[in-house]
Amino acid sequence: MTHPRVAGVGLTRFGEHPERTGRDLFAAAGLGALDDAGVDPDDVDALYYGNFMGELAEHQGHQAPLMAEAVGLDVPATRYEAACASSGAAVREAVTALRAGEADVLLVGGAERMTNIGTAGATDALSIAADDLYEIRAGMTFPGAYALMARAYFDEYGGSREDLAHIAVKNHDHALPNEYAQLQKEITVEDVLEAPMVADPLGLYDACPITDGASAAVLVSAEYAERHDLAAPVAVTGSGQGGDKMALHDREYFARTPAATAAAEEAYDDAGVGPDDVDVAEVHDCFTVAEVLALESLGLYDPGEGITAAREGDTHATGDLPVNLSGGLKAKGHPVGATGVAQVASLTKVLQGETSWADDVGDAEVGLAHNAGGTVASATVHVLEVVA
Amino acid sequence: MTHPRVAGVGLTRFGEHPERTGRDLFAAAGLGALDDAGVDPDDVDALYYGNFMGELAEHQGHQAPLMAEAVGLDVPATRYEAACASSGAAVREAVTALRAGEADVLLVGGAERMTNIGTAGATDALSIAADDLYEIRAGMTFPGAYALMARAYFDEYGGSREDLAHIAVKNHDHALPNEYAQLQKEITVEDVLEAPMVADPLGLYDACPITDGASAAVLVSAEYAERHDLAAPVAVTGSGQGGDKMALHDREYFARTPAATAAAEEAYDDAGVGPDDVDVAEVHDCFTVAEVLALESLGLYDPGEGITAAREGDTHATGDLPVNLSGGLKAKGHPVGATGVAQVASLTKVLQGETSWADDVGDAEVGLAHNAGGTVASATVHVLEVVA
Repeated sequence: MTHPRVAGVGLTRFGEHPERTGRDLFAAAGLGALDDAGVDPDDVDALYYGNFMGELAEHQGHQAPLMAEAVGLDVPATRYEAACASSGAAVREAVTALRAGEADVLLVGGAERMTNIGTAGATDALSIAADDLYEIRAGMTFPGAYALMARAYFDEYGGSREDLAHIAVKNHDHALPNEYAQLQKEITVEDVLEAPMVADPLGLYDACPITDGASAAVLVSAEYAERHDLAAPVAVTGSGQGGDKMALHDREYFARTPAATAAAEEAYDDAGVGPDDVDVAEVHDCFTVAEVLALESLGLYDPGEGITAAREGDTHATGDLPVNLSGGLKAKGHPVGATGVAQVASLTKVLQGETSWADDVGDAEVGLAHNAGGTVASATVHVLEVVA
Repeated sequence: MTHPRVAGVGLTRFGEHPERTGRDLFAAAGLGALDDAGVDPDDVDALYYGNFMGELAEHQGHQAPLMAEAVGLDVPATRYEAACASSGAAVREAVTALRAGEADVLLVGGAERMTNIGTAGATDALSIAADDLYEIRAGMTFPGAYALMARAYFDEYGGSREDLAHIAVKNHDHALPNEYAQLQKEITVEDVLEAPMVADPLGLYDACPITDGASAAVLVSAEYAERHDLAAPVAVTGSGQGGDKMALHDREYFARTPAATAAAEEAYDDAGVGPDDVDVAEVHDCFTVAEVLALESLGLYDPGEGITAAREGDTHATGDLPVNLSGGLKAKGHPVGATGVAQVASLTKVLQGETSWADDVGDAEVGLAHNAGGTVASATVHVLEVVA
């Protein structure tokens, strides 16, 4: 099988842009990706678009054709929604279509407008990623759900708020040179521990911010890349998806995310690599504890070992396995529907050696992107490799 | 290429079920489809699910894993949203995955809960299928948009409200023996013409009702069908999708729907058939005039010729090209996210000879399903054929 290539990527700066519409944000990212790829826009076969809360934030469904039009494309367009894994799902379907020979050039991306409806509005909109009948109406919030997962983890494996704080500190440090990141701000372990508590044991600095932004990538078939002599050395060599029961109370464990494990196993198998081959990863750290659960569920660390990875420096740019070099959701920001493709965009740049951390990271050849929805009732994993 | 088979289908009765949640509705349809298919539920690889307005009607996004759980499946699940073409988009992606060998058995379906939020709530939710900034805020409604399209058609080709009325009468007649239909009620041309005007020239009986309901189909690879000796004579032999500018004012014509034409051309080409080969069709008749636009855009009638097809009896069960034998959206009902797969379910039964109209229809071998989103900014077309 020949693997689809990432021909180009585009991002808006993540942050607070309440005055910019979703279509304005996505147009910037989409045109940026097309420009970066250097492909003829007329060659684009379709748009695969991820968005999560447009109905509530912009009173706008049916966004995919609107976004195609915003980028100036007259192509079929479909929106994928899997909560925070929406554009991860879009990447997966695009990879399937390219492999099947159904298309040669696909624009894949996502956008989310969140800050225009305020913190209360965004918090309400985010809650629809959980089970409304049995979780949200009972008073659960997302910080509350991840706090339960953190408590379960501490109970089963040990660990402390300070261990988690090191994850926040690391991801903020990674974001410092990232001009697309929302929070380019150095923080200390003390800052994290002294921040207001949101849902014990998670404080304000354990959570990602609320973010407006968009992301896009041009994925092309290997044949197209060759035919057009594109400089596209990074391929998506593995794709996987997993699902889980929606509500936490229906699951066997709170301290594991089997959907991510299923997605990772499928993606590793697909790519013919294993967790030991991964040089660099972008994982879904909507809360600090989510990074721990991801590292272990993806097989990058044994159960109980992920909690100290940041504290020990392993997952820093200067460590053995740099995780979230972009700053992650935590510091880069988390415009929900844009996050999955933003991870692919960030990884692509790292694998091409285009990162401020290049001196530390060296020649990374295998990257992994992990995008999760809700309390990981949905997960997608993609393996990216330098193939040329 | 071997074509995916429709191994089984399931529907809830379409109608007013304000007390039933989306998951309740979808569980019924999904389990019905699995039962009809006779496949081992453990063999299902993934759920492809269409839903449009769950965020507004049920305060519930991220519905796909919830629906997988409702059917008792522990599989990856993704939601597709393309307004009223949401589950048509799900079918298309499922077909791609089966053809690519990424899966052997897929549950595809959709659900919509609408009547629980009342007519005003549903009308507001439906409006997010149009351009909120430039159409809805300016006062446009969907009946208003289709009224503009009807007026443009009358201006360009002629035709009358009475011609349109015959479409409503035909589709109500078709629905009479359909136990899943919302409106099993005979109507006359006079009833249609005398009904309250909604948006001139479209009256109440020119519009589909507001509907709760769910649909599902089990699609399997040809290899799987053979290996398990399934009685699945109907295959999806062609798939196509088209897109258009979202807002009517950005389009060149109101009396054509190029997205449907693009989708049909792709699907015909894919299946190796032409419009003349189509024996029976389910088209997206959200308003009577939409059936006319569909017939012409799909190449089943020349421009200007579709308006009298129902009046002349051509598209009745007893005519040359039976259209909307299920009753169509007009009489069967239109639970938005469920409609695309419901069309496939209805066609499959017709092609298997399992329709009350079998004596009239005879041995139909090629069927066409046309699902449209908004004012046809999205369209999917599938060709179904009896292959065994």
